[in-house]
Amino acid sequence: MDKDNNLIWIEKSRKIIKDFRIFKACEVVSAAPDGRENTFTQLDSPDWVNIVCVVKNKDGEDSFLMVRQFRHGSSAITMEFPAGLIDKGEEPEKAAKRELLEETGYSAEKFIPIGVVNPNPAFMNNTSYTFFAVNPVKSDGQSLDADELIDVKMVPIKEFEDKMGSGEFMNAITIIAYLWYKKMAKRT
Amino acid sequence: MDKDNNLIWIEKSRKIIKDFRIFKACEVVSAAPDGRENTFTQLDSPDWVNIVCVVKNKDGEDSFLMVRQFRHGSSAITMEFPAGLIDKGEEPEKAAKRELLEETGYSAEKFIPIGVVNPNPAFMNNTSYTFFAVNPVKSDGQSLDADELIDVKMVPIKEFEDKMGSGEFMNAITIIAYLWYKKMAKRT
Repeated sequence: MDKDNNLIWIEKSRKIIKDFRIFKACEVVSAAPDGRENTFTQLDSPDWVNIVCVVKNKDGEDSFLMVRQFRHGSSAITMEFPAGLIDKGEEPEKAAKRELLEETGYSAEKFIPIGVVNPNPAFMNNTSYTFFAVNPVKSDGQSLDADELIDVKMVPIKEFEDKMGSGEFMNAITIIAYLWYKKMAKRT
Repeated sequence: MDKDNNLIWIEKSRKIIKDFRIFKACEVVSAAPDGRENTFTQLDSPDWVNIVCVVKNKDGEDSFLMVRQFRHGSSAITMEFPAGLIDKGEEPEKAAKRELLEETGYSAEKFIPIGVVNPNPAFMNNTSYTFFAVNPVKSDGQSLDADELIDVKMVPIKEFEDKMGSGEFMNAITIIAYLWYKKMAKRT
């Protein structure tokens, strides 16, 4: 749109600095509307998926099925919704089904898309999809990567709401998935 | 805690691959509980701040004061709450005051902390703080960096709620700030 000509930068060239496997770190040279150029960082990243799965815990409380694991970014243990990278060419819904099964051993009747975000448009180009798992059932399909040391937990929704934004419940993408879940729950 | 010995990795060494200014990209070698080692990516990042500021638009509607700008990660225009990096040694509240003024020209009576998240514990070590600006007033303090081409907008809260998770309203950190705002508004 013409009216945005004052805001849009045009990419002139890019260089991959390093392929970190979970993203490629690039330097992009772009030109501002007035012609001057500058260099910006972009992490060229696969899309992500995360899955909200509600089960009854042993006390019969509606609980989120979550994964508790050590995270190498924050160097700390976090409580998160099951999540992972979407493989190249994989449908987000298929990735949701695959990740839920691999990380928790649960499958579900179907997966409903409940929300989409850009984790970080300032320097990442990817999208994070959230799905809701309908009628989940426990199977024996858990299959973790060698480096995934994961405890599967049932966290009562009330407990999640009390704790989100503190302690182990500070992962931004998990908190947004909760928001999409609440929006869906309100509609139904 | 002893009970988490099955999850915790211990850092053995690290190497800075490149200082990208907005973060340092590092490779960290860590040891699992069973002793085997692997290499992980960590972006050593300054903390972030973002600010929820509610003003009346020209029709008298309660509106978020937002910034519309081109983002070099997503290569697209986004609508976001005013936000920025916290300087080394700077208090988050001071950064909130500084960023709101620089990006929008607004100041406020005080800044209340309303929520905290880790944007990405999988590979980032930083924290994002959200503040609510109490009694904002327009001043003439806007002072953008040379590379910040920003349009300041008043977005009715209703419009934000309709659009979040689509189009220009997909920044994860902005959506979480909205969630903290709603939690605060419910309490007061």
